[in-house]
Order: sequence, then C-alpha cells, then structure tokens
Amino acid sequence: MTRLRVRLAAEFVATAVLLCAVIGSGIMGERLAGGNAAIALLANTGATVAILYVLIEIAGPISGAHMNPLVTAVLAQRGHVARRDVAPYFGAQAAGAAAGAWLANAMFDLRVLQWATHARTGWGLWLGEAVATAGLLLVVLRAPKDKVAALVAAYIGAAYWFTSSTSFANPAAAFGRVFSDSFAGIAPQSVPMFVAAEAVGAGIVAWALRSADR
Amino acid sequence: MTRLRVRLAAEFVATAVLLCAVIGSGIMGERLAGGNAAIALLANTGATVAILYVLIEIAGPISGAHMNPLVTAVLAQRGHVARRDVAPYFGAQAAGAAAGAWLANAMFDLRVLQWATHARTGWGLWLGEAVATAGLLLVVLRAPKDKVAALVAAYIGAAYWFTSSTSFANPAAAFGRVFSDSFAGIAPQSVPMFVAAEAVGAGIVAWALRSADR
Amino acid sequence: MTRLRVRLAAEFVATAVLLCAVIGSGIMGERLAGGNAAIALLANTGATVAILYVLIEIAGPISGAHMNPLVTAVLAQRGHVARRDVAPYFGAQAAGAAAGAWLANAMFDLRVLQWATHARTGWGLWLGEAVATAGLLLVVLRAPKDKVAALVAAYIGAAYWFTSSTSFANPAAAFGRVFSDSFAGIAPQSVPMFVAAEAVGAGIVAWALRSADR
Amino acid sequence: MTRLRVRLAAEFVATAVLLCAVIGSGIMGERLAGGNAAIALLANTGATVAILYVLIEIAGPISGAHMNPLVTAVLAQRGHVARRDVAPYFGAQAAGAAAGAWLANAMFDLRVLQWATHARTGWGLWLGEAVATAGLLLVVLRAPKDKVAALVAAYIGAAYWFTSSTSFANPAAAFGRVFSDSFAGIAPQSVPMFVAAEAVGAGIVAWALRSADR
Repeated sequence: MTRLRVRLAAEFVATAVLLCAVIGSGIMGERLAGGNAAIALLANTGATVAILYVLIEIAGPISGAHMNPLVTAVLAQRGHVARRDVAPYFGAQAAGAAAGAWLANAMFDLRVLQWATHARTGWGLWLGEAVATAGLLLVVLRAPKDKVAALVAAYIGAAYWFTSSTSFANPAAAFGRVFSDSFAGIAPQSVPMFVAAEAVGAGIVAWALRSADR
Repeated sequence: MTRLRVRLAAEFVATAVLLCAVIGSGIMGERLAGGNAAIALLANTGATVAILYVLIEIAGPISGAHMNPLVTAVLAQRGHVARRDVAPYFGAQAAGAAAGAWLANAMFDLRVLQWATHARTGWGLWLGEAVATAGLLLVVLRAPKDKVAALVAAYIGAAYWFTSSTSFANPAAAFGRVFSDSFAGIAPQSVPMFVAAEAVGAGIVAWALRSADR
Repeated sequence: MTRLRVRLAAEFVATAVLLCAVIGSGIMGERLAGGNAAIALLANTGATVAILYVLIEIAGPISGAHMNPLVTAVLAQRGHVARRDVAPYFGAQAAGAAAGAWLANAMFDLRVLQWATHARTGWGLWLGEAVATAGLLLVVLRAPKDKVAALVAAYIGAAYWFTSSTSFANPAAAFGRVFSDSFAGIAPQSVPMFVAAEAVGAGIVAWALRSADR
Repeated sequence: MTRLRVRLAAEFVATAVLLCAVIGSGIMGERLAGGNAAIALLANTGATVAILYVLIEIAGPISGAHMNPLVTAVLAQRGHVARRDVAPYFGAQAAGAAAGAWLANAMFDLRVLQWATHARTGWGLWLGEAVATAGLLLVVLRAPKDKVAALVAAYIGAAYWFTSSTSFANPAAAFGRVFSDSFAGIAPQSVPMFVAAEAVGAGIVAWALRSADR
C-alpha cells in the first residue's frame, strides 16, 4: 500500500482541487449568469461533476480519493481504512478544503481570507443534506470499483438539483465553503447543523447496509 | 437469485429515488430558472439522466432496476421475470413512487400530501407517451447488458425533449407525479390516458419484437 | 450477415427516430426557451447527442446504423458495404427521415404535412456543411469500433456549435428537415447546395484517407 | 512508430480542429445567447469538451494528440517524445492553431485575417492560467492510457469554469485565439504573460512529479 505521507498528499490536493472547482465555478457562474441562478447552478453542477470524475480516477488509486470525512469514517468502520489513518485523513481533507477555497478567492481577485454570509438553515435543508449524504454513501459502498468515479460524479450532479440543500454531502466541503462569500458559500453558523444532518444520513446507510450484510 | 424480499426493497428504494429526483429537480429548476421553462427542463433532464444511470448500475444487479411496471410486464411476458413476482414488483414500484414524491415535498418545505393540478391531455401528448414508451422498451430489450444503464439514461434524456409529453414512459412515474403540484406534476384525471398510451406503446414493441424474433 | 430486409427496417427506424429527435427537440426547445436561441440549441444538441449514441449502439450491430447516405456511399466505396445494397439503404434512409419528421409534427399537434421556410444559404454555411461532413466521415472511418457511437455523438454535439451551419452533415437529415417549419427546418430550395457541400466534404475525406492508406 | 510526417499531419489537423471548435462555438454561442455570457460559455464548454474527447481518441494513437507545446515539452523532458521531434511538433501545433482560427472565421462569414482585441490581463488571470495548466499536466501524466481522452476533456470542461482565465492552458491555443476578435479571442499583447503563466504551472508539475518519482 502507498505510504501514508503520499496518500495524505493526494487527499490534500484532491480535496483542494474539488473545493477550488466548486467555489470557483460558483463565482464564475454567478458573475456571468446575469442573475439567473439556474444557469449559475447548471455551470456549477457541470464543473463539479467533471472534476469529481477526474479526481476519483486520478487520486483514487493513491489515497482512495475520499475527499470527505464521512466516506473515510464509514470505510474505516467497515474495515477498509486503518483506524489510525482516520485522523490524519480528516486533517488532510480539512486543510485541503481551506486551501482550495483560498486558491479560488485568489484566482478571482477576491480577498483571500473572507467568511461566507450565506445562511443555510431550516428542516427542509437539513433533510436534504441527510438524504444527499445517505445517497452518496450508498453509491460509494455499492458501486463496482471500476465505475465508482462515474457513478459518484453522476450522483452528485443529480443531487445538486434534487436535494433542497444542493447536496454538500461532505463536512470538508461545508468547512471549505465557509471561506468564500459567494454562490457556493455557507455561513459558519450554518455549518454545525449541516454536518450533523450529513452524519445522520451517513449513519443510517452504514447501519442499514450492516443489517443487510448480516 | 436474490431473495424476493431484497429485490422488492431495491425496487422500492430505486423507484423512490427516481421520483424524488424527477420531482425535486423540477421544483429546484422552476424556483431558480426565473420563468424560463427551457432552463428548468434542462436541469430536470440532467438530474433525471444522471440518477437513472446511477440507479440502474447500482440496483440493476439486485432487482433489475425496472422502476417501471411496463418494463416488469414486458420482461415477464418474455419469460425474464417470474409471473408470481409481477404483482409484488408493481406494489413496490407504486409505493416507492409515492414515497419519493413525498420525500421531495418534505425536502422543499412543501405540504407533504398534495395533488398535482397540471392537466396533461390531448392526442399529441398521448401519441408522445406512446412513442416515448415504445422507444424505452426497445432500448431495454435490445441494449447489451453492460450498456443498459447508459443507454436507458441517454434515451430518456433525449425523449424528455423530443416527445411532446416530456416522456414519462412509466406508469409508476405518472402515479408518483400525481403527488406533487409542481413542474413535474400531472393532475390525477390526466393519468389514465397517459398510462393507456404508455401501455399501447409498450404493447406495440413487445408484439413487433416477438414477430421479429420468430 | 443480417438479411437485407431486417437491415433496411433497422435503417428506416433509426433514421426516423433520429429525425424525430432532431426536429422534436427543436420544437420543444423553441417553445420553452422564451426567444433565447442558444438555450433552444443547447436542448437540441443534448437530445441529438443522446439519441445518436443510443441509435448507433442499438442499430449498429444490425444495419451499421448509417442513417446517412454519405456514410453508406463512402463505406461502399471502401468495400465495407455491398454495391447492390446502396440504393435500398438510400431509400430506407429517405423514407425514415420523412417519417420521423411527420411523427414529430403529429406529436406536437402541428400539421403533419408542412414545408420548412427557413432559408439556409451562403458561402459561410456551405463551408460549414463541408467541414462538418468531412469531420463526421473522418470520425466514422477512424473511430475504434467499440467507441464509434460515443465518438460520433460527441463529434456532432461539438459540430452543432462550431460549424456555422449547425452541422446537418447528412443528406437524409437535410431531406427530413424539409418537412418541418420549425427551429430545425430547412427550406427545400436550400437543400441542393447543402447536399452538394456535404458531398464535397465527404469526398475530400474519402480521397485523403485513400491517399494516406496507400 | 508512425513516421514523423504522418504524426505532424495528425498534430496539425487535430490542433486546427480544436481551435476551430473553441473559436467557432464561441462565435455561435455569443451570437445566439442574447448577451448572457454564461449561456455562451456553457455552449463553448460543451463543444470544447466533446471535440477534445474525439480528437484525443482519434489522433492519440497516431501522434499522441498533444495539440499543446507544453504537453510535448514535458513529455520530451520525461523521455516519452524524442528531443528532435519537439520543434517540428511546435511548428505543426502553431500552424494548426492559426489555420483553425482562420477556418472558423471563414465559416462564420468574418474577415479571415483579424486580430483579437479582448485584453486578458492581471494577477488573478495569470494565477488562473498557472493553476489550469498545472492541473492539465497532472491529468495528462497520471491518467491511465485508456481514459486519457475522457479525463482531459472532463478536466478542461471543469477548468473553463473554475479558473478565472477560463483555462486556455495551452500556448498553441493562446496563439490561435489571437486570430479571432470574438468571444474566445485574446489580444496579442496579453499572450506573453498567459504563456509565461502556463509554463510556470507546467514546470511546477513537472518538477513535483519528478521529485515524487524519485
């Protein structure tokens, strides 16, 4: 197996590129769309789907390309990731998410260090996040290995539109988006409930599949 | 073969996610598109294509991922599904379709139990539904097994635009859409003729291929 | 090899579905796009790409899924199609193209028999058609067999936008589009020069590859 | 290995078609989008992604389908391309880029020889170009061979939106775009810094992977 140092580097870079793509395409979409949020979200969706596919294909063989603490946690609970690797993975993902947001800010000539003000709150959104994350974990755990990149990318592309929360489905993504006061941003005070909802969704799938496997 | 209980669970979940995606992305599209129905339908199409691809890849090996009573019926008529499984499949698909609609309503902070008011009627639409369903059955019955997910998803993506009815092509979808008074909804009184048209389209293909196979 | 009668039926149905999709999605796109021709063409492109991929995968193993007299002609010139099959293929493609147009008209509650009034003329468009058809033939003749459906579909999707003529690249398509006075239509008097330009593009590629193969 | 003459012809044609598609779809998108730059860029992105996929699949087995001097340079530095082929490749790419731009101009009834006036300048854009090119080289060098076409195409599709510069990531593309005073154009005086930024991005990846491989 690849040494931990290399895997953490891959996880850091992949999460950074993912957040940079999510936030950057949100900024570009919002700037060009002339106020039509659907067009901005179409562009945001396309960029996210494409980069997810690329990142999972390229970084998957190195680190697994989780880019998501809940994916790491559920895989560890099922014995596919060593327990002692979980905390370092969390660190690499969080650091990568922040770095990606800052890189997007720098590219678009925005203040590098800024905080999102976009409040995202309410039972509908929290239910949306739980559904989005449950679906993501189902895809991650059930996809044939050679199709996981295409399936995860396609799933997130759909979930950007069919879940009310636009499917963050990832605590690292929620964390990174805090650092951008733009289309894709989320106000810091909205993050805890988003992460809690994501954990509930992931937990339900982990429990259900464990029962099904018995 | 997988036990019936597991297959019905897969069919229920897959149909629920499909309807949730169709209706949810319709709501999101309509809310964001600023009155431009083409942009809303583009988003609706993208989400439907992506989730169909995911659901058929993931649930296909378990239940066949029909999510559609006419697919189940035609496969049973050709001997690929046991006759005694047909009614339970119908039940799982109908229950899943309603559950998916209600989940979408809940996520978007709408009344969970509501009825569509969007009347869809007229010979053009009925011809559209017959054509849409005939094409779907042709793809399902003729696609190589390893490509059926991509081909069904691509076909529905095209048929959303080239058939006048936006291609429900599925009595379970027509049933589930009754429970959402939104972009993707269909008024209850419009359903019988939609389902009849779908059955005619499916019947013609089943009969034509049977003749061709002889 | 499949009997000629079956191959002609496949060629007829595939060309009919292709034209029905091209014209139908054009009508739907135009009706919903609120006057924004780019949004209508995006929808038209998506539907065409998706149905081309489906038709070549499904009908390819039966008839080759040419759906295009110039493809048939160049393949015959290279010895991949029997000379005596060329005229029947032309007939099936022309009949399918007209049938597909009429079916689209019927679905959208338009007069079934109508004539396009959209004049498409000028050296820029004719150069566009020649370029579009040359590229298509290059893809058809050079694509690995298992990728020809994806590559032809992707090529036409690009060429809808990068050629000034929106890439008919197909005399059968030009013929069928005559029967629809809508977004995708072409006035009858514009057809001869379109077909001539397409033939020039195809001829250049056939000649160039013949020289290269020597 | 294919003779150099044939490889240069493939490189010339592929780069010409790429630039023709990038510029042509930009012109078409701008003409039809009614002033909405996001819709124009969506069309431009779709056409670029599709044609990149086609060109790499078709020309890849012949010339490698670099269409990009920095790809050629980095592959030469790693020993995958013969040193003496580098300059001829550069020439074929530059000539192809110009020819593609002129062909697009001719198809759209524009003056064939024209100069872009769209200034693209500033630290944000230069950082964007460095990031875009670094990502491209990473994908080119790390993608499994049978997926390189899909991965490069998907990557560029994402980078069109998430990098502030819309990801030229290619000195030949920057050169060719000089010849079109349209959506995709770049004023000649903006090119040197774009190319410098691209070279920095490519250089960082080449150096980082060299360290990683040791």
